[in-house]
Amino acid sequence: METVTETSWLSDDRLELMRASVPVVYVEAVPVRVDALGNVTRIGLLLRVASDGSISRLIVSGRVKLGELVREALVRHCEKDLGPLALPRIPVDPAPFTVVEYFPDPDKTGYHDPRQHAVSLVYVVPVDGDCEPTQEALDLAWFTPAEAASRAVIGQMTGGQDRLLRLALAHVGQLP
Amino acid sequence: METVTETSWLSDDRLELMRASVPVVYVEAVPVRVDALGNVTRIGLLLRVASDGSISRLIVSGRVKLGELVREALVRHCEKDLGPLALPRIPVDPAPFTVVEYFPDPDKTGYHDPRQHAVSLVYVVPVDGDCEPTQEALDLAWFTPAEAASRAVIGQMTGGQDRLLRLALAHVGQLP
Amino acid sequence: METVTETSWLSDDRLELMRASVPVVYVEAVPVRVDALGNVTRIGLLLRVASDGSISRLIVSGRVKLGELVREALVRHCEKDLGPLALPRIPVDPAPFTVVEYFPDPDKTGYHDPRQHAVSLVYVVPVDGDCEPTQEALDLAWFTPAEAASRAVIGQMTGGQDRLLRLALAHVGQLP
Amino acid sequence: METVTETSWLSDDRLELMRASVPVVYVEAVPVRVDALGNVTRIGLLLRVASDGSISRLIVSGRVKLGELVREALVRHCEKDLGPLALPRIPVDPAPFTVVEYFPDPDKTGYHDPRQHAVSLVYVVPVDGDCEPTQEALDLAWFTPAEAASRAVIGQMTGGQDRLLRLALAHVGQLP
Repeated sequence: METVTETSWLSDDRLELMRASVPVVYVEAVPVRVDALGNVTRIGLLLRVASDGSISRLIVSGRVKLGELVREALVRHCEKDLGPLALPRIPVDPAPFTVVEYFPDPDKTGYHDPRQHAVSLVYVVPVDGDCEPTQEALDLAWFTPAEAASRAVIGQMTGGQDRLLRLALAHVGQLP
Repeated sequence: METVTETSWLSDDRLELMRASVPVVYVEAVPVRVDALGNVTRIGLLLRVASDGSISRLIVSGRVKLGELVREALVRHCEKDLGPLALPRIPVDPAPFTVVEYFPDPDKTGYHDPRQHAVSLVYVVPVDGDCEPTQEALDLAWFTPAEAASRAVIGQMTGGQDRLLRLALAHVGQLP
Repeated sequence: METVTETSWLSDDRLELMRASVPVVYVEAVPVRVDALGNVTRIGLLLRVASDGSISRLIVSGRVKLGELVREALVRHCEKDLGPLALPRIPVDPAPFTVVEYFPDPDKTGYHDPRQHAVSLVYVVPVDGDCEPTQEALDLAWFTPAEAASRAVIGQMTGGQDRLLRLALAHVGQLP
Repeated sequence: METVTETSWLSDDRLELMRASVPVVYVEAVPVRVDALGNVTRIGLLLRVASDGSISRLIVSGRVKLGELVREALVRHCEKDLGPLALPRIPVDPAPFTVVEYFPDPDKTGYHDPRQHAVSLVYVVPVDGDCEPTQEALDLAWFTPAEAASRAVIGQMTGGQDRLLRLALAHVGQLP
């Protein structure tokens, strides 16, 4: 999950207090390229260099703000992570394909966020446009479903996002 | 459901025999326009003049042929009914949002097809391109969700497609 | 949505501050009776007398607490509203069938909660056991899908739950 | 997929002709045990001895007959494979969690049925009762999600059902 906190609407103190009080609503988006038949041909994963120099890969992720619609949060985080020209195709169905629950305790669900209990609504989002990663991401790489499910790629994902990626591949019928 | 039989792969006799033996696999697509947030803003309904001069409205519908993928059938019928420039966005999820079962007995499920027992996989399909109805359809009209759910429009749909249209509106969170 | 605040884990002040800071995670459950084929035969609606003496009907609803799983919250609220012998069948799919967003502004989405911005994960939950409403509910009444969708019943639901009930009926293929 | 043909409603000749003409509608059910929170705790797999003495594992599967509802076919095949006391919980949502397409060509989709092109609607079906395999199945074994996804078990499934089983595990959030 994203490590940049969004403090524009909440002070750090308020955010800490909130995290100590209630679960936080998140959205996550697995960016994909699709062919004319609707088959997923590529999965987009952000690259980020951790403080120890290791590279981790992650999907689009972020908090839903007070007063913000889930759809608005999805667009905002896709634009934040993929750039303004990505043209994300937000699904017509308001229901996520799965719900993932992150906890500070890494063993509770296998989805781990040291900062907070987050309830995350996860969507597969086709993107048609040009993607250029913004903010702290180094790059955005596109993988075939087979590559994305390989140990080489899955092994670079943390906090349970490796599992989440495979759930997404299964959802679109592309789990190898 | 469509009234033009596709006899290119099956003779009429073979088709009759088949309909007397097994349920037929159908796909149906509710064509929609969406905004940047993924909200459905318009629903496309084909117009057709019946033999008695009345107008009925219907969604995209047709049979899955032997050897044909469900995704291929969806694209083929969208192109057949909406024209080659419609650019249908076939969903990434292979599962339909609902399954509807048509029977010659109109009371069995409320979905009625006098010709056959059909098991229909129904999808909501965003279309971006220019739609121009082909074949026997007179026109394609686009309605807001409120208009599509109104008695004026719903009242022109038959065989249970009025109900199916409302299921689709509910699926996208737009049932008035 | 429920009007009894759960203050066991949060003081009133903390709850107010939280509601002024972030969206709140809710779960809602539409309790149903099903037959051996999985068809919904009855929908359960709670009855409550409002301060003006009017009766309103509502579905099971409540907040997800810090550290609580969505599944645990679903069971807890079903037991709270339907009694300890209801035997709710929590769905195997962690994804809700729809997501509904409540706002203090009644016009923003049509789903209205004067107290807060709530993101609600909504499930259809078959119940097999004996239901006896607890807490402030007067009664629990079971309606056929046709009755539940009728103006007499829908007209007694507020805050958008009438619409939500119809989305649930559509989801199970039972919208009249 | 099942190897016993159901000839009660169709002669062998008619069945052959039908298979040479149209895709056949199938239902498949992944039988599961669930706990009170709706978590899948066990997956049931049928055991069958092939003609070469090898053991293969498979899920509940069978054809939808002319005039038969999908729900009726699901119950019939669950009773056929799991016995009359299995008490299958057919889902309230008529939509399958995925659609799988079997072809005589094993490479077309990876789902292989040498006899026919089949369009299969796949459901996860909790069963509460006593299961005793009937017909040609040797036994029914229950596996934890981790066991079911292991090479030892997956390796005994053929025709793509190994992949289908993993899609089912992903759907219920239990893919290891």
